[in-house]
Amino acid sequence: MELWFTEKQTPALGITCKVLQTLHREKTPFQEIAVLDTEQYGRMLVLNGMVQLTIGDEFIYHEMLAHVPLHSHPAPRHVLIVGGGDGGTAREVLRHPQVEKVTLVEIDRRVVDVSRHFLPEVSCSFDDQRMEVLFEDGVTYLLGRQAEYDIILVDAPEPIGQAARLFSREFYEGVLRALRPDGIFAAQTESPFVNSDLIARVYREVRGIFPMARLYLAPVPTYPSGLWSFTIGSKHYDPELPLRESGLEGSLRYYNAGVHKAAFQLPNFVRKLLDGEVRPGDVK
Amino acid sequence: MELWFTEKQTPALGITCKVLQTLHREKTPFQEIAVLDTEQYGRMLVLNGMVQLTIGDEFIYHEMLAHVPLHSHPAPRHVLIVGGGDGGTAREVLRHPQVEKVTLVEIDRRVVDVSRHFLPEVSCSFDDQRMEVLFEDGVTYLLGRQAEYDIILVDAPEPIGQAARLFSREFYEGVLRALRPDGIFAAQTESPFVNSDLIARVYREVRGIFPMARLYLAPVPTYPSGLWSFTIGSKHYDPELPLRESGLEGSLRYYNAGVHKAAFQLPNFVRKLLDGEVRPGDVK
Repeated sequence: MELWFTEKQTPALGITCKVLQTLHREKTPFQEIAVLDTEQYGRMLVLNGMVQLTIGDEFIYHEMLAHVPLHSHPAPRHVLIVGGGDGGTAREVLRHPQVEKVTLVEIDRRVVDVSRHFLPEVSCSFDDQRMEVLFEDGVTYLLGRQAEYDIILVDAPEPIGQAARLFSREFYEGVLRALRPDGIFAAQTESPFVNSDLIARVYREVRGIFPMARLYLAPVPTYPSGLWSFTIGSKHYDPELPLRESGLEGSLRYYNAGVHKAAFQLPNFVRKLLDGEVRPGDVK
Repeated sequence: MELWFTEKQTPALGITCKVLQTLHREKTPFQEIAVLDTEQYGRMLVLNGMVQLTIGDEFIYHEMLAHVPLHSHPAPRHVLIVGGGDGGTAREVLRHPQVEKVTLVEIDRRVVDVSRHFLPEVSCSFDDQRMEVLFEDGVTYLLGRQAEYDIILVDAPEPIGQAARLFSREFYEGVLRALRPDGIFAAQTESPFVNSDLIARVYREVRGIFPMARLYLAPVPTYPSGLWSFTIGSKHYDPELPLRESGLEGSLRYYNAGVHKAAFQLPNFVRKLLDGEVRPGDVK
């Protein structure tokens, strides 16, 4: 018997992976969590039927969400991660010895528990002394903070249901307040092929709120279309330039200083999307 | 009723697309050709069950295969395309007014016929006066040429069966001979996620034959893993630098000078693959 898991990434597009074993399935008050062992990409974390990460390609997403903003800040001491309950983003943040404290706010405690059990390569960050883990609503938490963080990373799932608030103007204004005067914010913002309307709207809002807004791209094979975007808002430092020689490149599998700068070199169709020349929805 | 086309890109990974209509299917002496109308990416050309192009994302592959080498050559007058029977690569080459003649050598006349009928946006190049189309074996043709071309582009299908010869050392040596003394060669060389052994071998051979060898990357959503590689061999000009202001950027959807340079900034895992630090097969 062959077992295949198919995620319908859009109503008309899917990725399908051969499954060696279903390791875990449960329904929490927040979502359905599953862990599959796939032949192509190794273990896979699936939330509400959508691939959250696989061992085979998670390094790209997590390295690019964390290391681009962290390399653009001269002294990233206190970092807030909203979401990211699998621990992968925190793992990358904690590679920087300047980081003194990481606060991770995850709404669903079971994501952390399941990741710690089934995905030790990803969740190893939870054993670090610098980690503070809070199980509560990320938006509510953030809106109560002021000038506390050097870096805020939003590692949120698709903007559906509860998670939609993590892509709202109110939230981005809260991010601005919660950052120190030279802070940097980065968020995953989906695919320019299948979520162009979201990218255009988020970019417009972040540009209206932050002194500097930029979009950068990285390939993530198991995410819809395989091309992923991150939106960055910066209060002071130019996020396109890696400021520091972190000495980390030898231990990273995707990120390096060349890749950092290259990720901001946008293809024409993405540039036009941000410039408002293409109406959201025009770019397939 | 819902009709879905699934390509098993590897024995354990697939892409699946909702099909509005099957427009064409035939078996030629060389392969099975199909044209599907998909909801997500528009019309799709399928050869032997493998996605060759879709209207929704072909611009990336064709622009990057053509414009990177053509922008690195000061006077690309005569261009040879091996394969590329859909006409997409030729369409991009012909945007350069310096190009005086494009010779396209396609083994299967039916690919050209079917593309002209069903994919006019892609095959429009065949109406250009500068096009010469030959229906014969690309390897045999190439091995008989000497110092004729400024640019040679290999737009070949997966290296299976007949097409495997287009990825051989003998062929690359023929490419070197067929190029003029300052010529540039570029070929599609599959995905660093699922074809790492091929990429490492081709790069090693091209580096051994050409004064300069480089790899560059671009995202192609409907190809396996969504991340695609191109290998370039150059006799004289540095392929990483766009030499000419072509004035074409306004009409292109992916390529620009920033993207050209960025495409050569390789992630660590791809660098290691080329440096031989990772054994082919280690990188999933």
